[in-house]
Amino acid sequence: MAAMAAAATLMSATSSILRRSALLRPHGLQVPRRFPRQRFVRHIASSTNEEAAAKAAAATADIGGPTIFDKIIAKEIPSSVVYEDEKVLAFRDINPQAPVHVIVIPKVRDGLTGLDKAEPRHAEILGQLLYTVKVVAEKEGVADGYRVVINNGAEGCQSVYHLHLHVLGGRQMKWPPG
Amino acid sequence: MAAMAAAATLMSATSSILRRSALLRPHGLQVPRRFPRQRFVRHIASSTNEEAAAKAAAATADIGGPTIFDKIIAKEIPSSVVYEDEKVLAFRDINPQAPVHVIVIPKVRDGLTGLDKAEPRHAEILGQLLYTVKVVAEKEGVADGYRVVINNGAEGCQSVYHLHLHVLGGRQMKWPPG
Repeated sequence: MAAMAAAATLMSATSSILRRSALLRPHGLQVPRRFPRQRFVRHIASSTNEEAAAKAAAATADIGGPTIFDKIIAKEIPSSVVYEDEKVLAFRDINPQAPVHVIVIPKVRDGLTGLDKAEPRHAEILGQLLYTVKVVAEKEGVADGYRVVINNGAEGCQSVYHLHLHVLGGRQMKWPPG
Repeated sequence: MAAMAAAATLMSATSSILRRSALLRPHGLQVPRRFPRQRFVRHIASSTNEEAAAKAAAATADIGGPTIFDKIIAKEIPSSVVYEDEKVLAFRDINPQAPVHVIVIPKVRDGLTGLDKAEPRHAEILGQLLYTVKVVAEKEGVADGYRVVINNGAEGCQSVYHLHLHVLGGRQMKWPPG
């Protein structure tokens, strides 16, 4: 409960509260392995909410404060981990948009609130993140294909200001990509 | 004309002909700087065509033959270049899905028909590609945000088997991402 209270405090301090508040609900802590169709339909319908959450998050992005990912990295908030090494963590999205939906993040943000903050020194971790996507896709068994998405800023629909890659698969992805 | 005839031969030999055939039309060679709304609507409507093209492309993906990108890299087919260095080329998509839609590719494919073919040795070029996205986004002035997309395989909607990153911006991106 202490962890959850701390998470609540953290989330109040960030603008990602709208989208991530499901994490605070006890049932939300259990990430379903299989993709619930009902939830999928709901999230398609809530696309405008995602955009609103992204706009709200952008308003305080430059502060570079802690995000929900810090608690996930510290294991203070449980997540369904797909892959982990000393630099990278991959875990299943709590609001999956496809049967497979995994988030890949650097464990140390190092200024990378978003891809737009990348400097030449970040090229190494950026390469590791993309290589990890390939590893994650193999582990998740999405042999028929998948999509990698990085959202940057409000118009990109970014709602957590810690660089992260979405890996989506297990269904036919559409075009345009959102 | 010789280049276009060669391109026609190349494209007949690849499975990307459905999607990329616009490149062979004279008016298709002029990439519009501003985004034509009419074209955008048309391409939303043709989402299933994209998926069909991706499925057809996947059928011969393992051959690893030349793609339309080889001709673009060799400047045998003109493109609207946004950024170029010795390892990476970024050019505007001929079928833009947003006001800004740029493709970023490695000049040497080196086995990377798709991200699923990535090996640890590819981490360096993968990092350079993602860093180039940041450079491209700055050049294109999408300060309000953008989305990076990598399609892999038929279900990911990949239609050219030479690893490439899409950079989309200049409008509000939606969620889910396709």
